[in-house]
Amino acid sequence: MLEDKNEQRTSIAKLGEFGLIKRLTDHVKLTHKSTIKGVGDDAAVLEFNKKQVLVSTDLLIEGVHFDLSYMPLKHLGYKAVMVNLSDIYAMNGTATQITVSLAISNRFSLEAIEELYAGIHLACATYNVDLVGGDTSSSNTGLLISITALGEVEKKDVVYRNGAQANDLLVVSGDLGAAYLGLQVLEREKQVFKANPNAQPELDNYTYLVERQLKPEARKDIPKLLKELDVKPTAMIDISDGLSSEIIHICQQSNTGCNLFEDKIPLDPQVIATCEEFNIDSTTVALSGGEDYELLFTIDASDYPKIKANPNLTVIGHLTEQNEGMHLVTRANQKIELTAQGWNAMLRG
Amino acid sequence: MLEDKNEQRTSIAKLGEFGLIKRLTDHVKLTHKSTIKGVGDDAAVLEFNKKQVLVSTDLLIEGVHFDLSYMPLKHLGYKAVMVNLSDIYAMNGTATQITVSLAISNRFSLEAIEELYAGIHLACATYNVDLVGGDTSSSNTGLLISITALGEVEKKDVVYRNGAQANDLLVVSGDLGAAYLGLQVLEREKQVFKANPNAQPELDNYTYLVERQLKPEARKDIPKLLKELDVKPTAMIDISDGLSSEIIHICQQSNTGCNLFEDKIPLDPQVIATCEEFNIDSTTVALSGGEDYELLFTIDASDYPKIKANPNLTVIGHLTEQNEGMHLVTRANQKIELTAQGWNAMLRG
Repeated sequence: MLEDKNEQRTSIAKLGEFGLIKRLTDHVKLTHKSTIKGVGDDAAVLEFNKKQVLVSTDLLIEGVHFDLSYMPLKHLGYKAVMVNLSDIYAMNGTATQITVSLAISNRFSLEAIEELYAGIHLACATYNVDLVGGDTSSSNTGLLISITALGEVEKKDVVYRNGAQANDLLVVSGDLGAAYLGLQVLEREKQVFKANPNAQPELDNYTYLVERQLKPEARKDIPKLLKELDVKPTAMIDISDGLSSEIIHICQQSNTGCNLFEDKIPLDPQVIATCEEFNIDSTTVALSGGEDYELLFTIDASDYPKIKANPNLTVIGHLTEQNEGMHLVTRANQKIELTAQGWNAMLRG
Repeated sequence: MLEDKNEQRTSIAKLGEFGLIKRLTDHVKLTHKSTIKGVGDDAAVLEFNKKQVLVSTDLLIEGVHFDLSYMPLKHLGYKAVMVNLSDIYAMNGTATQITVSLAISNRFSLEAIEELYAGIHLACATYNVDLVGGDTSSSNTGLLISITALGEVEKKDVVYRNGAQANDLLVVSGDLGAAYLGLQVLEREKQVFKANPNAQPELDNYTYLVERQLKPEARKDIPKLLKELDVKPTAMIDISDGLSSEIIHICQQSNTGCNLFEDKIPLDPQVIATCEEFNIDSTTVALSGGEDYELLFTIDASDYPKIKANPNLTVIGHLTEQNEGMHLVTRANQKIELTAQGWNAMLRG
């Protein structure tokens, strides 16, 4: 479960900052026609012509957002890119470029940072995104990754959080809660490993959960699918903090209420089985788990026929007038006020 | 000399991430017509029409890039923005937007972070730049600031590092070495303060040096001035690491050599006086000190009459064929090979 200890350890100090950047980015191929100049000058130069430009940025910090005792560096690099691209897709755009800044403590070797970059490069290749700049620095403790993603979108296609209206349908891509449970499984195995370093991790029953935690995929396909289905969402957001908190963002910014139906929330069978095993409520996990990187959006009710047969999309509720409030309608048909407890609150609770 | 200890201390944990971002950015006014949507959605939305877009990013890390025992938080916020804008001006562009990501340890109160943001907002207002996004996170140790700056430039105006040619003139804005000496003065006062906490700092003779270190100004005026003078540089870079390292970047990327004349390097009288007092060679300070955030550029020799009378600009040498090498021509008319020792090397040496 622990990352492979690389035999070779080259000190980063020996290379220096310019040497390190050159080594990590020398073979980068630029594929977007909007990328005029990437790494190697004071700034990257891009050209979007008449398209609007999307910019989003996220920090990932060791000990806060990730634990290297079960997160392999290559996966971490991949995930760090996903977290950022997800925000661009949530605007209904196409991700085009990223910049990557790293703060690295001296416990990381060149080989370790190359592993991290292997994940970043793989994400860029898979999602057709150009790595165009960044900064590296030493850090006194741990590893920090700061990524800024850029994207493009036709002016008429951009989707904000604030465009939803009463009676719009609430739709989610994929399924929810698996990434959070994957983290719980990995945390449990870490404790087992600490108690007995010879123990082999038992992950066979949790492959989907662990994959959702360690190698999430941003939903690049959804803006494309919606275009093909001729559906423009009225509002959209990505699910990073948990379903309830994201629904509340849309409702508050759109001045609406909502009814979310518990029995409609899409859950993978492994999520249901593992919730039973761990004795956790699966709805709580979906509402507050976070890190799903699915897209949550609202559509006009008249667009329902266009999406209803699609296996990627699930209607989970509808919006209401603001004064009706934001509610979860349980399987027992009870209405409970929706609160944004989020990940940390749940862990404490 | 130490920052004021604020009477009021509000815990950031109490506000939460969304509360903190709202508090720090609620009053932000967006002034650029290229800014369609700032903070508050998954991504900022920008519109540059036919202009090219410049993107640059820099990390500032406590204990590596700054020391809060003599750097007031407001100045730090201001400087963090300057460091990034400087890269945009070095492309001959106009800075238009920034995103700001912070990692904050629990020793910082809300009031402290508001001080930091006061500096960021002041820089944005002074330089006409919109704050359009960011991320905040807790950190296990210290403070980290990651800023990405965006800018715009007409395609015909963009200046890279690689366009210089033999016989071009080497030109620098402002004067060099003061920021590095300012740091030395502040370090000395810190040691005095440690030995005797009642000692008052003696900074009267070093006001310019300390200001250059604590409140540098990016040269927004230079691209504008060059346009007015009808001069397009053939190559340009900002001086963050020291003059020699930046000259070498231009020469290497442009495949040229150079002669830099020691007696032409612009030095402020305080730099000369303080170098004498500290018994340091002023040329070494200018070559390797760094953090000047002046612009270094090359122009075609035929443009010399347009710039020669300008008090902001100094011709410090000229480019040569690559096989002639990169040299400093001393006051004694000796040719010494130019090396990029940089800041750290000088401190060790």
